[in-house]
Amino acid sequence: MIKATVHVTIKESVLDPQGATVQGALHSLGFNEVESLRIGKFMEIELDTDNREEAEQRLKVMCEKLLANTVVEDYRFELEG
Amino acid sequence: MIKATVHVTIKESVLDPQGATVQGALHSLGFNEVESLRIGKFMEIELDTDNREEAEQRLKVMCEKLLANTVVEDYRFELEG
Repeated sequence: MIKATVHVTIKESVLDPQGATVQGALHSLGFNEVESLRIGKFMEIELDTDNREEAEQRLKVMCEKLLANTVVEDYRFELEG
Repeated sequence: MIKATVHVTIKESVLDPQGATVQGALHSLGFNEVESLRIGKFMEIELDTDNREEAEQRLKVMCEKLLANTVVEDYRFELEG
């Protein structure tokens, strides 16, 4: 069993309306020190394999095929234990 | 300027329909090794302050008030450099 965490973030050059909305809400609540805020997705995945190299290759394909929209999003993943 | 990352995850005891849907989609694509998949949110925040202690306190309040729904979600945050 291998645990992996995947982070999917919107590319720097792409607008993040959800983040902008949350930033505006924080300003309304008095948190004026918030200079920027961007929101991404975060996935915790358990893989039924013990082959780390294979797990990395498979995760890369999962990200490219389904988990991230690589036109506007970046992804990165790490394997645990 | 302090950079912070905030992770908001659905509590273990709470169903994650979005994660279940993505897991099902991965299975349909042939990634049968995916045993579990849970999706959370991930925020990159820039704070206009140099006081790390104050930043931590303020972030905690932001999470409790707006960023996480503490009834069904857990949060954690780390400060960078």
